[in-house]
Amino acid sequence: MQVINTIDELRKQIKEWKKAGLTVGLCPTMGYLHEGHASLMDAARSGNDKVVASVFVNPIQFGPNEDLATYPRDFEHDCQLLEAHGVDLVFHPEPSEMYAPDFTTFVDMNELSETLCGKTRPIHFRGVCTVIAKLLNTVTPDRIYFGQKDAQQLAIIRRMVRDLNFDVEVIGCPIVREQDGLAKSSRNTYLSPEERKAALVLSRSVRKGQDLVASGVRNSAELLASMKERLAEEPLADVEYVEVVDGESMQPVETFKDGDLVAMAVRIGTTRLIDNFTVGDPAISFDA
Amino acid sequence: MQVINTIDELRKQIKEWKKAGLTVGLCPTMGYLHEGHASLMDAARSGNDKVVASVFVNPIQFGPNEDLATYPRDFEHDCQLLEAHGVDLVFHPEPSEMYAPDFTTFVDMNELSETLCGKTRPIHFRGVCTVIAKLLNTVTPDRIYFGQKDAQQLAIIRRMVRDLNFDVEVIGCPIVREQDGLAKSSRNTYLSPEERKAALVLSRSVRKGQDLVASGVRNSAELLASMKERLAEEPLADVEYVEVVDGESMQPVETFKDGDLVAMAVRIGTTRLIDNFTVGDPAISFDA
Repeated sequence: MQVINTIDELRKQIKEWKKAGLTVGLCPTMGYLHEGHASLMDAARSGNDKVVASVFVNPIQFGPNEDLATYPRDFEHDCQLLEAHGVDLVFHPEPSEMYAPDFTTFVDMNELSETLCGKTRPIHFRGVCTVIAKLLNTVTPDRIYFGQKDAQQLAIIRRMVRDLNFDVEVIGCPIVREQDGLAKSSRNTYLSPEERKAALVLSRSVRKGQDLVASGVRNSAELLASMKERLAEEPLADVEYVEVVDGESMQPVETFKDGDLVAMAVRIGTTRLIDNFTVGDPAISFDA
Repeated sequence: MQVINTIDELRKQIKEWKKAGLTVGLCPTMGYLHEGHASLMDAARSGNDKVVASVFVNPIQFGPNEDLATYPRDFEHDCQLLEAHGVDLVFHPEPSEMYAPDFTTFVDMNELSETLCGKTRPIHFRGVCTVIAKLLNTVTPDRIYFGQKDAQQLAIIRRMVRDLNFDVEVIGCPIVREQDGLAKSSRNTYLSPEERKAALVLSRSVRKGQDLVASGVRNSAELLASMKERLAEEPLADVEYVEVVDGESMQPVETFKDGDLVAMAVRIGTTRLIDNFTVGDPAISFDA
């Protein structure tokens, strides 16, 4: 497995592969990898001749009061996981390689990035779109892989790819969960043992929502009231939002249909966690 | 010469060329072509195996009170000129082909797009960056050509290409002028005979500025005072700005050096014209 730190070297390797007619799958990550990331690598491995993973904690997608400085990092462990999952090349640049001191260009979108997480993280998706545009222009992959856990991010990237005519297929991969239901996240490492238990309220609320959908509920207010009730049972949980939005536009809907998104952000102590389900997808199951 | 109206067809042709190892030069235009555009085609013709020109009056770079509806169009004449200059493919999409009704993604930059023309045209460069990003992603050219007349646009595109890692060489081509000095522009067609004469005050002011630089002036205030004095001699001229800015950052400078930009926008009647020179470039000459 190659480890490359510069855009020039990366581009050179990609061009060799393209010249040989090989397809390339790209899995962008911020590192501190878990089985959720591994599922992206596996999907990319089975769908492409070459698999590139990026490990880059992207500074421009963090707000001034967010966890950029403390975001967990373990590049050695990341490399072990990536190699075990058949990744051919890891791109691991320094922030200075990605952003010149006078960096001034951003990819941004309105509407989709203003609801849900965008309300409390106003510059987040601008940072995500910008770094993904840079990676797309450098790697020119045939396919790019994202987890459904960051459902709004996935919808935004799909829109960006469509609007700016990036020639790439965007593939969303299902949320990977711990046995007890908690969605895998690098940020789970922030949780104390007590908070780790409390964090189960997210997946339980998701499951509650899925049960209601299965029982025929299609009214957002009714669904959200029950899910919020479930969340309120956990004293350590501080709900940022629970919403039902159109699966493409990310705008709130009064009644929902298959493909729409039910998403939440909840603070457990100081740790902000997200979870979601898409209406019509199979119900999650867990031991609890 | 091929004329293509859709992104899919364009991409298909480009892929065939790339597969055959051919290089591609792209000249983006808004049509109503003149010798200035032709010089871009000639440069692209001599530097690439295949030359693509786009003819597209890009709605998102016009403000609500600007001349989108009246912008001059003559596609038949454009095709004659393009064919005569050896263009292989003209991309001529409808606005609906470029912008879905729920188009939401924009490429934008601060600083460079906020000075000069950006002061009175706040969304203009966002529209330019966005359409050029779309064309770059569709045509994936080896080289892209712009005129120096739109000097701020050229600096902004250079910055966008650097910041977002587009794999393309940006080539700026010198301003082409009428015999009497007026910089060629599709908007010159708006001028009445009397205004056409008055419009010469721009190139004369440019020449005045170049003479002062040649005489050793390096102080922006001194240079601008003389150039404004020259512009004030023309009663039909309404000066929007004359400024000296850093050639890369587009920020005003107190003293200037080679590579810095002296740029102006002046209204002659209702027609807004621009002109400029780069410090260190050869002085312009004209019959007058």
